[in-house]
Order: sequence, then structure tokens, then C-alpha cells
Amino acid sequence: MFAPPVNRLITELARLPGVGQRTAQRLAFHILRVPDDQALPLADAIREVKETVGECEVCFNLATEATCRICQDERREAHVICVVEEPGDVIPVERTNEFRGRYHVLGGALSPMDGVDPEDLHVSELLSRVVGNGVRELVIATNATTTGEATALYLADAVRERAPEVAVTRLASGLPVGSDLEYADEITLGRALRSRVAL
Amino acid sequence: MFAPPVNRLITELARLPGVGQRTAQRLAFHILRVPDDQALPLADAIREVKETVGECEVCFNLATEATCRICQDERREAHVICVVEEPGDVIPVERTNEFRGRYHVLGGALSPMDGVDPEDLHVSELLSRVVGNGVRELVIATNATTTGEATALYLADAVRERAPEVAVTRLASGLPVGSDLEYADEITLGRALRSRVAL
Repeated sequence: MFAPPVNRLITELARLPGVGQRTAQRLAFHILRVPDDQALPLADAIREVKETVGECEVCFNLATEATCRICQDERREAHVICVVEEPGDVIPVERTNEFRGRYHVLGGALSPMDGVDPEDLHVSELLSRVVGNGVRELVIATNATTTGEATALYLADAVRERAPEVAVTRLASGLPVGSDLEYADEITLGRALRSRVAL
Repeated sequence: MFAPPVNRLITELARLPGVGQRTAQRLAFHILRVPDDQALPLADAIREVKETVGECEVCFNLATEATCRICQDERREAHVICVVEEPGDVIPVERTNEFRGRYHVLGGALSPMDGVDPEDLHVSELLSRVVGNGVRELVIATNATTTGEATALYLADAVRERAPEVAVTRLASGLPVGSDLEYADEITLGRALRSRVAL
């Protein structure tokens, strides 16, 4: 129905997560409508990130050099490592301004059903960083999902076995700050109840 | 917070319609995560449409040559012209398989409040096509919105003045096929009532 270049653009846009055929069409027509100097910078930006952005060789966060800016920052505490699933998860933790340690990006979560095993993630690299390097605490900040929890439990076991001196902690589960009890799902509320703290 | 190339990509993605800062971040991390051969085709496709796709010099539909494929198709009736706002609006009309005429893409709808006047749209080109060229009917298929309706009324007047022999028609308004009366808004229902047809 469309000219081949338009079809190709729609196909490529529809590959993006959360972008269906309709949205891809709408985005394609937007790109067609705007002047070149509003559309081509997106093409250039895609090419640029793929050419210049890679993985930090220490923590697997995004990096434009061999190591990322956090690993390069001497002021960051080397004895606390926060483990996250994806590079994008570093951002929300950084935004809290509560964490001054380093990171380790796993590259996903364990999910044997989907064929994601420990060797598909940066688990062995994490264990190498943790064992005998003066690390005192590992904060596991994987998602509060089934796979995220399974990954947390797996890592806790693996670290305890190889480096029992390292404290392994997990982000607290509970009611989101500012939320109404009325709207909390029963699993979150149950967890919040079990994890209740003394005032 | 991100490396400059990542920030640039997020900024460019956030310029797309309906893409906020959060979605742009999510898309950027997706692009960063996938292999080059899944990300670069999007960059190439954007560049390709901007380089190869222009406007049909007759009807202002998308075209990879001087005129679009519909204008080039001799089997399409030249005496009926369907007027739409945007190139993307040609597609839903084509999908109906009910229209065998030609198109005219206005490039938007009249909206004096937003500074969109007749001279900002392809109105004069439409009048040139309609006057003295054997056109028998103009089907106005602008959107059923305030600006779309205003544009339809404006065009109907303009055509009646210059080419009174041309029939000007408008897409019917009414209940969407398959919809429940219960869920129809009162304006649509009122319109459907006023436009009732004999059975």
C-alpha cells in the first residue's frame, strides 16, 4: 500500500518495544512530514550510539570508553556493589542520591523457562569482582518480579558460598511511598506486613 | 546522567509524537541493547524516506517519483477527487476498496487559532484541479473534528463559488458499525439521528 521506503521505515519502527503497526505508521508519517533537519538527527543519533556506546569492561554499564563514568569515579565507594538487571536500571538508583558505591549490570534476569541461565548473564564476572577484592556489601537491586527475585536468591547463594564475608542485601519490598492502602495489591501489602519495622 | 550520545538519542526519540521522556529512555535502551543489524536499519530507513520520498506534484500524496502511484494509475477515475488532510489518511480510504477516484492531500486542516489559513494548505491547487477539468464530484474526507468540519465547509463554499457544476459531498457521520448505542456519545448519536436514512 505504501512506497517501499515507507514500508521499510514502518517495519523498522514496529520492531521497537511497545510500538505496534498503527503507532509505527503514525511515527513514519510524522517523520515524513517534518523537515529533514528534524528527522535526520534521529537517524544520526541511532548510528552514533551504536558506534560509540559499548559496555564497561568492569561493570557492564553503558560506556563510551573502556570503563564507564561511575567506575572511573574515584570518589565512588569500591566496597559496595549494587547489582541491577539492565543498564537502564542504574539511572533510577542514581536518581535517589542514596547510593555512593559501584554497580554491576547483569544483562538480564535468570529465567530458565526462557533459556536464560547464569552463564547468559554477567554472573561469573560479578563473583570475580566480589571474591577477595575487599567488597563488603552486595546490594541486589534486580526487579521485584518473579525472575528478578529468583536472580536475587541465586546470587545470594552463590556469593555466600564463595565469599561468606560479603553482606548480601536486597531492596526492601513494601508500599510505595504516598500510596493508599486501599489500592495496594494483596501481595505487596502482605510483604509490607511481614517486613514491618519498629517505630 | 547518560553519556552524551545516549542523551542525544533520547532527545531525538522524545521529539516523536506520543513519545515522552520515559518512553524515549526505554526505546533508547532497547536500541542500545540490540545488535547493530537490528538497530541500524531503522537509522537507514529514516534517512532513506527523507531522501527518496517526496510529494506528488498533482495531489500531494507521498511519492517516490514526480507523481504518486495513484495519480499514475490510469484506471483510477479522474472525475472524482477525495480530499484528505494528511497523506496517512489516504490509506484508510484505500482500505475500504470503495473508492476508485483520485486524491488530494491538503497537508492539514484549517485552524485560524493555530495560524493555519487556506494559503498554508494545498487549497489553491485543489481549486485549480477542480475548475474546468471535468471533475464531477469532490468527496471531502477531512477528519470528523472541529477543524476537519470547518475545512470541509470552507472547501464546499470555495468550490461551489468557482465550479458550481461539481458535486461536493462529505463522509457520513453516525454510529460506528458494530458499536452499541449505549456507548455512543451524545453528539455522534444526535448526528446519527439527524442523518437517519429510510430503510
